[in-house]
Amino acid sequence: MTRVIISGCNGKMGKVVAECISARNDCEVVAGIDITGGAADFPVFSKPDEDLPEADVLIDFSHPSLLSPLLQLGKKRRMPLVLCTTGYSPNQVQDLTDSAKEIPVFYSRNMSLGINLLIELAKKAEQVLGGSFDVEIIEKHHNQKIDAPSGTALMLADEIADAGTNKPYHYMYDRHSQRKKREPNEIGIHSIRGGTIVGEHDVIFAGRHEVITLSHSAQSKEVFASGAVNAAVFLAAQPAGLYDMSDLLKD
Amino acid sequence: MTRVIISGCNGKMGKVVAECISARNDCEVVAGIDITGGAADFPVFSKPDEDLPEADVLIDFSHPSLLSPLLQLGKKRRMPLVLCTTGYSPNQVQDLTDSAKEIPVFYSRNMSLGINLLIELAKKAEQVLGGSFDVEIIEKHHNQKIDAPSGTALMLADEIADAGTNKPYHYMYDRHSQRKKREPNEIGIHSIRGGTIVGEHDVIFAGRHEVITLSHSAQSKEVFASGAVNAAVFLAAQPAGLYDMSDLLKD
Amino acid sequence: MTRVIISGCNGKMGKVVAECISARNDCEVVAGIDITGGAADFPVFSKPDEDLPEADVLIDFSHPSLLSPLLQLGKKRRMPLVLCTTGYSPNQVQDLTDSAKEIPVFYSRNMSLGINLLIELAKKAEQVLGGSFDVEIIEKHHNQKIDAPSGTALMLADEIADAGTNKPYHYMYDRHSQRKKREPNEIGIHSIRGGTIVGEHDVIFAGRHEVITLSHSAQSKEVFASGAVNAAVFLAAQPAGLYDMSDLLKD
Amino acid sequence: MTRVIISGCNGKMGKVVAECISARNDCEVVAGIDITGGAADFPVFSKPDEDLPEADVLIDFSHPSLLSPLLQLGKKRRMPLVLCTTGYSPNQVQDLTDSAKEIPVFYSRNMSLGINLLIELAKKAEQVLGGSFDVEIIEKHHNQKIDAPSGTALMLADEIADAGTNKPYHYMYDRHSQRKKREPNEIGIHSIRGGTIVGEHDVIFAGRHEVITLSHSAQSKEVFASGAVNAAVFLAAQPAGLYDMSDLLKD
Repeated sequence: MTRVIISGCNGKMGKVVAECISARNDCEVVAGIDITGGAADFPVFSKPDEDLPEADVLIDFSHPSLLSPLLQLGKKRRMPLVLCTTGYSPNQVQDLTDSAKEIPVFYSRNMSLGINLLIELAKKAEQVLGGSFDVEIIEKHHNQKIDAPSGTALMLADEIADAGTNKPYHYMYDRHSQRKKREPNEIGIHSIRGGTIVGEHDVIFAGRHEVITLSHSAQSKEVFASGAVNAAVFLAAQPAGLYDMSDLLKD
Repeated sequence: MTRVIISGCNGKMGKVVAECISARNDCEVVAGIDITGGAADFPVFSKPDEDLPEADVLIDFSHPSLLSPLLQLGKKRRMPLVLCTTGYSPNQVQDLTDSAKEIPVFYSRNMSLGINLLIELAKKAEQVLGGSFDVEIIEKHHNQKIDAPSGTALMLADEIADAGTNKPYHYMYDRHSQRKKREPNEIGIHSIRGGTIVGEHDVIFAGRHEVITLSHSAQSKEVFASGAVNAAVFLAAQPAGLYDMSDLLKD
Repeated sequence: MTRVIISGCNGKMGKVVAECISARNDCEVVAGIDITGGAADFPVFSKPDEDLPEADVLIDFSHPSLLSPLLQLGKKRRMPLVLCTTGYSPNQVQDLTDSAKEIPVFYSRNMSLGINLLIELAKKAEQVLGGSFDVEIIEKHHNQKIDAPSGTALMLADEIADAGTNKPYHYMYDRHSQRKKREPNEIGIHSIRGGTIVGEHDVIFAGRHEVITLSHSAQSKEVFASGAVNAAVFLAAQPAGLYDMSDLLKD
Repeated sequence: MTRVIISGCNGKMGKVVAECISARNDCEVVAGIDITGGAADFPVFSKPDEDLPEADVLIDFSHPSLLSPLLQLGKKRRMPLVLCTTGYSPNQVQDLTDSAKEIPVFYSRNMSLGINLLIELAKKAEQVLGGSFDVEIIEKHHNQKIDAPSGTALMLADEIADAGTNKPYHYMYDRHSQRKKREPNEIGIHSIRGGTIVGEHDVIFAGRHEVITLSHSAQSKEVFASGAVNAAVFLAAQPAGLYDMSDLLKD
């Protein structure tokens, strides 16, 4: 029975993670962390501190500002961390990478199986088409999302740019501000926001008289919560190191 | 037999207009205008000047910079003008509106029947959903297109904003540069560029747990050329005034 | 305070209707009907019979086989009926239409605002394009759905066929069984089934070198439940007659 | 300089192949075959017979009924054959496979690079998702197409079924005729027909709360003609054997 602490337990994703865990019989929530405090089916602490009960793994869906105290807590207690928050700075990514030398850290900018497959397919497509097709990414999310583009859209762009075609890609967010032709080295990234859209990502490869589009649509947040819980159960049994969804797929 | 002058006759659209006219038996091309000069099945002039033969109507698919001499020529000769060029400044739109007091001017930012229906449907949707749904527009064109967004995307946004819901809309082109929630008064406009895509426009209405999307896809430029020729034959028989595709639909 | 009986209260939709009502303060559930019986926050009866408490309106999300006893109960008690079940036979539609002479009956093959707007837009598009564009409908639902095509897809097809273009449309479900060209009078209807898809409908108008697609996507069943509850509150105050979503839109 | 005979030279695809060849300088058309006879920039014969001039390769875009005389001609002259016609019976596929022991035969149910990549990606997706996702295929073509489903849709389905997941798939063309839940072993195949749509294929993997869609859209027949000409130039230099697009990709 894997004991889990949920950081950001009062947020939308934190709640879905708790539901997802309560529906399984191989793990349980022993505590939550949330700046808003309050009550749940488990004790909730306002910050990651000493009073937290012992646990086998922590799942974080909170805010980038909480990364540093979470890494400290993890290293002090030798507790594995599943980091699902998006929007870390490059320095923060370096910090969590360093911490992974001491404890198991799972960091994937998107927790769904489908998204991670989408990335694999987009890399393959780029390797075949990259020489002559233009790449554009469209992501759609609900109107409460604060950051743009989504972490997943950036992840897609980064992986396509690294797919081995040696194209020196740069990212284009706004074509409205200029009057000129598209350059072959652009990856256009477009952030649609509206309603309660959970998450959609399209990768478009547009060539001479043909277009290939690879799309993923998430219908509910359960998809991400369920991936995070799978990662937590997996990570609780691993040695120190930096892990991501591709390790989980191999498992 | 309607006699037509094609301005921008050596450009992609000009050539398709010429093909489209040669396949009909109610009109003919008597001359072309193109800065690149050269030869065709009709005499080509390098600018709109006195040497042009007489004609019943002129179709322009050239460049915004040619508007002023075209309006002068039209007024001097009492020749109707079908203006299909996109990217006019507000001042230029004022100029052509003024000229329409003297001669028939047809000005529609998009010449396809389908696009003009799309606009009607988007206005109706806005009237029903506008209070609680978010509006986003995605347009896709080939990688040689210089302006962004497309004239059609702007036309869609303008018509939705004027649909009578009294929402003080503003247009959002780049969400990457900020970290904040979407405002209800935004219309997001996104310009995808790639390959040889002829022209696609999606209008998205995203609400609570449901999304309506209205889409138009043009498969070849024939759609616009054929609309322009229809407009030319129509316009040649009209009195002075400003006309657009909705007048053609009523016809 | 409108008192509601939910028929099919243990089914997926019945449960969402109950949740939707409990979140409002202008209505309450006084009883449920479900062949599986069992307990809820209200008494559950195994069939529509005498023991049911008094109520102002009944919402049905059960099965076509229950229509006859529901109509009898409604007429006996003068109780308005909101019929949200799909898959009625033509005879059953006749029965409920007859009953509407005695009591208020709300019957709409789809309860979402968005779908009903989609139908309006599709009719308008057919009126403009119907002479020369081909119409095809694609609907997508989860893999547990038993009937095909969806009631909504049929509703779309029927309304397009009745849009006033005098085209003698027939419906085509399977082109695999023959080798011949599409006839202009066909409306193709295609039923995709997979995963947990809540409900998507595309209406495609395909013409010469252009395609218009009108799409609706429902992200959760809340969209239909919330429409049904709105209809119930509306219907409880109406005289005998047959009502549908268009009456609700006018309200 | 590769000398080419075009079979079906007066059909739509035959004409595009001729245009495509005339724009290259490594091949030329030496003759055409078409039941309608007539004139072109090269001699046109009404059937594949002795009078045809010598050539290095033949490209066929005609009709399945012509397969047998083409195979005879090819074997008699030791002339390589690029067979692009769709709709062969299983017996015919056996015949061309047998003939490939004597002469080089190129047979790919779809000639575009993009489609062949789509197939690769769909197989990869099936290998990762096949255990728990439902597969559906939608294909869209113009209203003059006689066969359904498209050869490409069948090719996609066959390759997914053979992807190694050991699922005993069968194909489902019409859900309208029954009332039952989808079986996990179905691949739904849906044929949309309308307007002048050149060719679109969607492969949908629908799972629990997420959907992955892989799409290909062909904008003009040039995509297939250009693939056929590439195949012809390749095939003219090969020994006897059965070749398809994957051999061309390796080249």
